[in-house]
Amino acid sequence: MEGKEEDVKLGANKFSERQPIGTSAQTDKDYKEPPPAPLFEPGELKSWSFYRAGIAEFVATFLFLYITILTVMGVSKGSSLPGRKCATVGIQGIAWAFGGMIFALVYCTAGISGGHINPAVTFGLLLARKLSLTRAVFYMIMQCLGAICGAGVVKGFEGTPTYQMNKGGANFVAHGYTKGDGLGAEIIGTFVLVYTVFSATDAKRNARDSHVPILAPLPIGFAVFLVHLATIPITGTGINPARSLGAAIIFNRDLAWNDHWIFWVGPFIGAALAAVYHQIVIRAIPFKSRA
Amino acid sequence: MEGKEEDVKLGANKFSERQPIGTSAQTDKDYKEPPPAPLFEPGELKSWSFYRAGIAEFVATFLFLYITILTVMGVSKGSSLPGRKCATVGIQGIAWAFGGMIFALVYCTAGISGGHINPAVTFGLLLARKLSLTRAVFYMIMQCLGAICGAGVVKGFEGTPTYQMNKGGANFVAHGYTKGDGLGAEIIGTFVLVYTVFSATDAKRNARDSHVPILAPLPIGFAVFLVHLATIPITGTGINPARSLGAAIIFNRDLAWNDHWIFWVGPFIGAALAAVYHQIVIRAIPFKSRA
Amino acid sequence: MEGKEEDVKLGANKFSERQPIGTSAQTDKDYKEPPPAPLFEPGELKSWSFYRAGIAEFVATFLFLYITILTVMGVSKGSSLPGRKCATVGIQGIAWAFGGMIFALVYCTAGISGGHINPAVTFGLLLARKLSLTRAVFYMIMQCLGAICGAGVVKGFEGTPTYQMNKGGANFVAHGYTKGDGLGAEIIGTFVLVYTVFSATDAKRNARDSHVPILAPLPIGFAVFLVHLATIPITGTGINPARSLGAAIIFNRDLAWNDHWIFWVGPFIGAALAAVYHQIVIRAIPFKSRA
Amino acid sequence: MEGKEEDVKLGANKFSERQPIGTSAQTDKDYKEPPPAPLFEPGELKSWSFYRAGIAEFVATFLFLYITILTVMGVSKGSSLPGRKCATVGIQGIAWAFGGMIFALVYCTAGISGGHINPAVTFGLLLARKLSLTRAVFYMIMQCLGAICGAGVVKGFEGTPTYQMNKGGANFVAHGYTKGDGLGAEIIGTFVLVYTVFSATDAKRNARDSHVPILAPLPIGFAVFLVHLATIPITGTGINPARSLGAAIIFNRDLAWNDHWIFWVGPFIGAALAAVYHQIVIRAIPFKSRA
Repeated sequence: MEGKEEDVKLGANKFSERQPIGTSAQTDKDYKEPPPAPLFEPGELKSWSFYRAGIAEFVATFLFLYITILTVMGVSKGSSLPGRKCATVGIQGIAWAFGGMIFALVYCTAGISGGHINPAVTFGLLLARKLSLTRAVFYMIMQCLGAICGAGVVKGFEGTPTYQMNKGGANFVAHGYTKGDGLGAEIIGTFVLVYTVFSATDAKRNARDSHVPILAPLPIGFAVFLVHLATIPITGTGINPARSLGAAIIFNRDLAWNDHWIFWVGPFIGAALAAVYHQIVIRAIPFKSRA
Repeated sequence: MEGKEEDVKLGANKFSERQPIGTSAQTDKDYKEPPPAPLFEPGELKSWSFYRAGIAEFVATFLFLYITILTVMGVSKGSSLPGRKCATVGIQGIAWAFGGMIFALVYCTAGISGGHINPAVTFGLLLARKLSLTRAVFYMIMQCLGAICGAGVVKGFEGTPTYQMNKGGANFVAHGYTKGDGLGAEIIGTFVLVYTVFSATDAKRNARDSHVPILAPLPIGFAVFLVHLATIPITGTGINPARSLGAAIIFNRDLAWNDHWIFWVGPFIGAALAAVYHQIVIRAIPFKSRA
Repeated sequence: MEGKEEDVKLGANKFSERQPIGTSAQTDKDYKEPPPAPLFEPGELKSWSFYRAGIAEFVATFLFLYITILTVMGVSKGSSLPGRKCATVGIQGIAWAFGGMIFALVYCTAGISGGHINPAVTFGLLLARKLSLTRAVFYMIMQCLGAICGAGVVKGFEGTPTYQMNKGGANFVAHGYTKGDGLGAEIIGTFVLVYTVFSATDAKRNARDSHVPILAPLPIGFAVFLVHLATIPITGTGINPARSLGAAIIFNRDLAWNDHWIFWVGPFIGAALAAVYHQIVIRAIPFKSRA
Repeated sequence: MEGKEEDVKLGANKFSERQPIGTSAQTDKDYKEPPPAPLFEPGELKSWSFYRAGIAEFVATFLFLYITILTVMGVSKGSSLPGRKCATVGIQGIAWAFGGMIFALVYCTAGISGGHINPAVTFGLLLARKLSLTRAVFYMIMQCLGAICGAGVVKGFEGTPTYQMNKGGANFVAHGYTKGDGLGAEIIGTFVLVYTVFSATDAKRNARDSHVPILAPLPIGFAVFLVHLATIPITGTGINPARSLGAAIIFNRDLAWNDHWIFWVGPFIGAALAAVYHQIVIRAIPFKSRA
């Protein structure tokens, strides 16, 4: 009747015909290459945009650790002073710092590097063949370097005694939880994050939903915020190996190093599960002919 | 003068000619079937997208309960330790966890299953004939199973004694309120949520507003957050029978079971009222000819 | 060069040629009538959409008072118990309840009634001739009735003694401030809100910015949140005469009635100043020929 | 296959061909002038839009200081009363006030003046030649005047003794930090803000991303919020010389004046670094031919 009206998906129950199953890359208008990114792509090593992307990942992860670890320090210091318990932004403020920075940084760097800021996100997208192995390794190195520098600047501001006393924002499994609990919390937490990344950037959404990249950084940042709300009491919340590594290197105590493997293994397993869930179950790539 | 300018609805007072009364389905460009979803649609039982939608509802409700009940546990444990009262994300953090998860999960699953994650929402949309009875029942079962698993994992992480002592995030009417208060709070709270769902996904909005699905998860998530701000002191806030059932089964004490009917009856009445309000009062379906 | 690129306004410094000065109504594509709404428009009294809009304002203001006053009660009760000071959503949670509800409700009702939910907003838009006097008066009556019912339900839930002891969420000038301070706070606070409403709904924004209604409820809700952060310690924050009236009638003590005029005079002055600022200074309607 | 599908940048790894390196201004459809704004543009001194923009900056900065300093006062007063430690919006509420006001005000004034509300932002955009020197100086003066008036009104409401006792929201380096720490915190904090401004308003984003101005105020506001979360314990967070100057003039004690240079030098260095990073590293203007 009125040409302007369109189907609104939320709450509707007919999707199959408008969501053909298959990889996004195959029908992307802007891609000429075969859909999955090649493992090695020599050409990109010669392009300025490759190095620029690495620099953007470095700067973003630097700013991420700087703001978040500084917020953690402020809360830790305030909480240890009698009568100043509420004179900080609180644990909830820490969760906002992590989630909010991911929102702002993904927004700023999505157009330059894809806005990963997290080796687990890079790993998940690598499994889905969204970027080359060369690029993935380069990103991870830059992310880790950025994280180390960011945590280092916070230590410089706070002074070594204060920084060490407040545990430097390092991740470790809290008293009362087993290492298995910590590993499980990291796996599910990273699943939430990487699943949100896949959903928010899914090229199979239809035209109207393809405006979604505008909003995509918001649910991604919120996912980080929410996982922090839930798991700060368990592990301090890693779900980002670069963040855990940066804090551990600058803190450099057994407390952080003993559990450090959890914050690499957990996020990578979680990211892999999210990639499998999104690519196999939701997009059903191996079952294409049944669509 | 300038062709680019368009009418902005907010604050304007002429809407009738641009909002013809009728069901959205009748003029939906993407629907070939008669508008109301049939009660039974045998075809969808053979489609992969039907089962995929069920899996998406299961996973979403699992993650919803996992993150939210874990947040509740963190606050409950922190609050019971002397001198650590402010060392948690607080009651406000709990409200953010519930609302934020709904925002992120509706965003992620709206394109797969409609993003209900809540039997009351499914019930409301069923009354408005937006999905078949078959699908509604399938969704509700998957939501309840997901919720049970999510709460179960939290119990696994926290250990049974801690979990039971902190009441497992179960819903019950707080001391000082009658069962009638609790029922009323659930009815109005669910009305707020389901009314927001109907408004946010209303296909009768005009073309520019049809971009709204981009933003739709945000007011829906906010509605959940707001109802939690208001009614956590009364019932712990259900407004989602799957969430209440999952927490009750894993907690499994009389405290939760005695009031449990409230968290099914209340949300279903609230959802029905919202469906009536939106379909009859706002969209005036029975009075179409008077438009 | 690339046809896709467009000018981005933020931070740019050339606006005049793309923002001709004048009323939005004059060039609105959807309006056939002369731009300013007539004071009396007999036709709308016969249209269903007129009464539907009034019902929507009633329901929205009802839900607004219900959620917000219930949140205020929860915080007041929690704060008065020793050792439970942090066991509430806190003052910040109250601010979120007010701002968040305005966000969600403006989002839901903007397409039905314009989403005023506030006699001061209706008054400001009336001064700008965005709606008829008939409609404005009808809206204000429905808003006040909704507010009274919303506060009444909260009193029903909490019980009269608890409700009265916690002052029923009524607005009054706090100890340590003069009535002039309170009046000033209400004027500037309402200015912030109504100025945001005018800016967010400004039809003179260009085509891309006209997508803004999608986002418009967000800054409007945030404006309410921010004014509450700032002025809860002074007046409890009115900036909405219906909210102040509803709480005062249900509370019904001299404490609320003595200062009640402030919460009508202040918001109406603030709304008038915002209308003048936006229409005269920003849109320069009286100086059109100088453009 | 389906014409509606589009490439989604987030997580993709092919950007070079769609992001040619160069200044945005050169290909802006709406610009007829040579890209960089001239240092002096006599014409704009005769246009009403120039003065209107100055007035908008004045009003916005006035409202910014009014709301934020009033929020700071509420928290400071509440915290100094025994037993009322949690009876305020808290430090997190202060961070929301600053970030939220920037969100709302950038949203409202972006179409009038570009929505700077901050001399450091104006300075960064001047370095990128986005506005003339004349306009930049005019904006900065109006911003400082607005800030002084806003802080003055708060002092009027609170009364001089209360205002002075609570330090008037003035910026100074906190006990336990060196002036170098404070300067560094201001530099990095302003870098985060101005980098977000550049990214959010980058005209080189492609067509779909050019819808970004709709959302641009959100990450900009969040950036301000996040920097406050992190650095309130160090300097009270300036990153806005007008805000620091307004508070210092109304407070007018040595405490504020001794460190005052930090809140001009730091933000200006941070803004310059952000301009260099965005224009040289990200947009690579000097290396255009290598693209």
